[in-house]
Amino acid sequence: MVEIKPPITFEIEATSGKARAGLLKTRRGVIETPVFMPVGTAGTVKGIRFEELESKDLDARIILGNTYHLWLRPGVETIKLSGGLHRFIGWDRALLTDSGGFQVWSLGALRKISEEGTAFRSHVDGSLQFLSPEISMEVQAALGSEIVMIFDECAPGDASAADARRSMELTARWANRSRAKFADLQLQGADSGRKENQADLNGGQALFGIVQGAAYRDLRRESLERMVEIGFDGYAIGGLSVGEEKSVMWEVIDEVAPLMPTRQPRYLMGVGTPEDLVESVARGIDMFDCVLPTRNGRNGQAFTARGRVNVKNAQWAHDMRPLDESCECSVCRRHSRAFLRHLHQTGEMLAGILLTHHNLAFFLDTMRRVRHSIWSGDFPKFRREFIERMRASGE
Amino acid sequence: MVEIKPPITFEIEATSGKARAGLLKTRRGVIETPVFMPVGTAGTVKGIRFEELESKDLDARIILGNTYHLWLRPGVETIKLSGGLHRFIGWDRALLTDSGGFQVWSLGALRKISEEGTAFRSHVDGSLQFLSPEISMEVQAALGSEIVMIFDECAPGDASAADARRSMELTARWANRSRAKFADLQLQGADSGRKENQADLNGGQALFGIVQGAAYRDLRRESLERMVEIGFDGYAIGGLSVGEEKSVMWEVIDEVAPLMPTRQPRYLMGVGTPEDLVESVARGIDMFDCVLPTRNGRNGQAFTARGRVNVKNAQWAHDMRPLDESCECSVCRRHSRAFLRHLHQTGEMLAGILLTHHNLAFFLDTMRRVRHSIWSGDFPKFRREFIERMRASGE
Repeated sequence: MVEIKPPITFEIEATSGKARAGLLKTRRGVIETPVFMPVGTAGTVKGIRFEELESKDLDARIILGNTYHLWLRPGVETIKLSGGLHRFIGWDRALLTDSGGFQVWSLGALRKISEEGTAFRSHVDGSLQFLSPEISMEVQAALGSEIVMIFDECAPGDASAADARRSMELTARWANRSRAKFADLQLQGADSGRKENQADLNGGQALFGIVQGAAYRDLRRESLERMVEIGFDGYAIGGLSVGEEKSVMWEVIDEVAPLMPTRQPRYLMGVGTPEDLVESVARGIDMFDCVLPTRNGRNGQAFTARGRVNVKNAQWAHDMRPLDESCECSVCRRHSRAFLRHLHQTGEMLAGILLTHHNLAFFLDTMRRVRHSIWSGDFPKFRREFIERMRASGE
Repeated sequence: MVEIKPPITFEIEATSGKARAGLLKTRRGVIETPVFMPVGTAGTVKGIRFEELESKDLDARIILGNTYHLWLRPGVETIKLSGGLHRFIGWDRALLTDSGGFQVWSLGALRKISEEGTAFRSHVDGSLQFLSPEISMEVQAALGSEIVMIFDECAPGDASAADARRSMELTARWANRSRAKFADLQLQGADSGRKENQADLNGGQALFGIVQGAAYRDLRRESLERMVEIGFDGYAIGGLSVGEEKSVMWEVIDEVAPLMPTRQPRYLMGVGTPEDLVESVARGIDMFDCVLPTRNGRNGQAFTARGRVNVKNAQWAHDMRPLDESCECSVCRRHSRAFLRHLHQTGEMLAGILLTHHNLAFFLDTMRRVRHSIWSGDFPKFRREFIERMRASGE
């Protein structure tokens, strides 16, 4: 009898209401959930070294890579010749790769969607390119990420019911094609990140489905049903934080999350603020990614336990306090608001480097606190106090 | 009887021909010489965190700050309120501050020199500003650096003999004024970096004189004599690497270095390539600073033991070797030329961050090797082999 091992395992270790604390085991390490995944679009989490991501301050167990960006530059051949994305970038922990669906969607007028896939013009050189479920799966196999996302189509936040249905149904058909091509590629050994001799894992990649359907709860339910019918190693909610009202996001999550399979990880794509993360955990979400800590950091905005701090503000010119007095990251241990403001005002790279570090430390530490509070049964209290403190202006 | 302690001590531990290996003791740590000082113009060595400067890879014992830049931004008041430059930037090792003379000189047409000092327009906001020996000493006392430089005037590399003499004589008079004002400020307790209870040091700042005189050997000799007559804690050669032929630089160093006091540190300002450093050590120089490793790193150029490597080049697209196979820095241990090229081509901040780290590691490691070779008596062999290897193209 042949034992069938999965590519990942997921165990819930504790719950508090709908909130779950779990262990997601991948071929490249165990990830405690709920987890925040820093975004490494083009093979680098912008402005931070991998050593820092691995450091005690951050200890990021999984980061994102983007199929769209890496496919255009450096291209699949370079990644293949390097032996996969992990080896190309020098990161041996887990990777999740987005399918390119969202990036191509966000090109707006530059793209054209057909049943077969999406034609679009490259943002790099304007050349005509084409992505499909099959191509996305091929690229993600070459990248060798631990978690592959299906190639989906995202409807805008204000899509009509008819447009949203068309888009959701296309995503469902693309999910089937993604599933089939993914299975072929795994059998063919196309996965460049494959790890043999894993005790209870098969050493291959995992594939996650994505729930679409814009703001329509019935479409969201149907999308989830179709994804579960196909069967994936995890399920994501896509197409949120794309211009809809925040209340719509909560409605969709409140509708979908309770219906999602309990024994697989639930991933809310592209969300969000620290408050969004905590509120989503309360609704049963396990995984997150967002560019806010890195992008806002480069723009001079810090997230702190008492709200956001804009380092540009003149009021910090002589302020020798750290960004966040309750933060123990290396930036807060060493540098003052006055110095960070000076760096930002003089256009020094170090401003972005330090704010990126602090912001990622804050997001990852917040998730650490979330997990501890679920383990100890104090999540409701943590949630209440966290949201209250965040509302206090840092400025 | 009152024991008179100096602000710094300098001991030669070994020599090899004219090359010297010494120990420069400051109130903020002991510096092994010959030493390379990374340039931290505006209170940050561009693109690198202080933790990395302190790490084993680099272990920079002293960095530079620039009076001109810090005086304009964030301004003396902010630095004073922070308790000095060390506390403002979060660096507890030694600092050397340039006087502003060279920066003001490099503004070219924007400046006007008089006996009193230099009027110029700020590069930040175009406002009219004025620097003099007295003001420079006041700013450097507020910065609280371990080593203060006199306010000098720098003649261009192609200055006429008459212009070069005028400039050299002005620098000599300004050296006198710098000395007098510096002594006043030390007595007044204006030094924000003062450290009491130093075993064999007085806890105050050291002041270095600067030899000028353009390409004229007689003027250089006279300038040195006048500096030694005034008496400083160390002596610098300024006004080189400002557009003159390389052969002129060696002529000046060959003329001046043998005449410089043997028991004080000798500092060659703003020089140079790794080859220049090794060749200057061979002529008796102890201290260096240069923006090459940081500036060129940001522009995609790496210094390696086999010459320079431009990461932009297409030939590295699939090259999985490190920048420098003989380098043990964290960048070379982890990342390939292919990845560094990709980062540079996609305009990622990490390109500059990693190349800056490697280049500084290479410069500092080169100086470490220089010191070891002087200690062991192998400096001539090291020098010959180093120069030969550097001539081998890295590309």
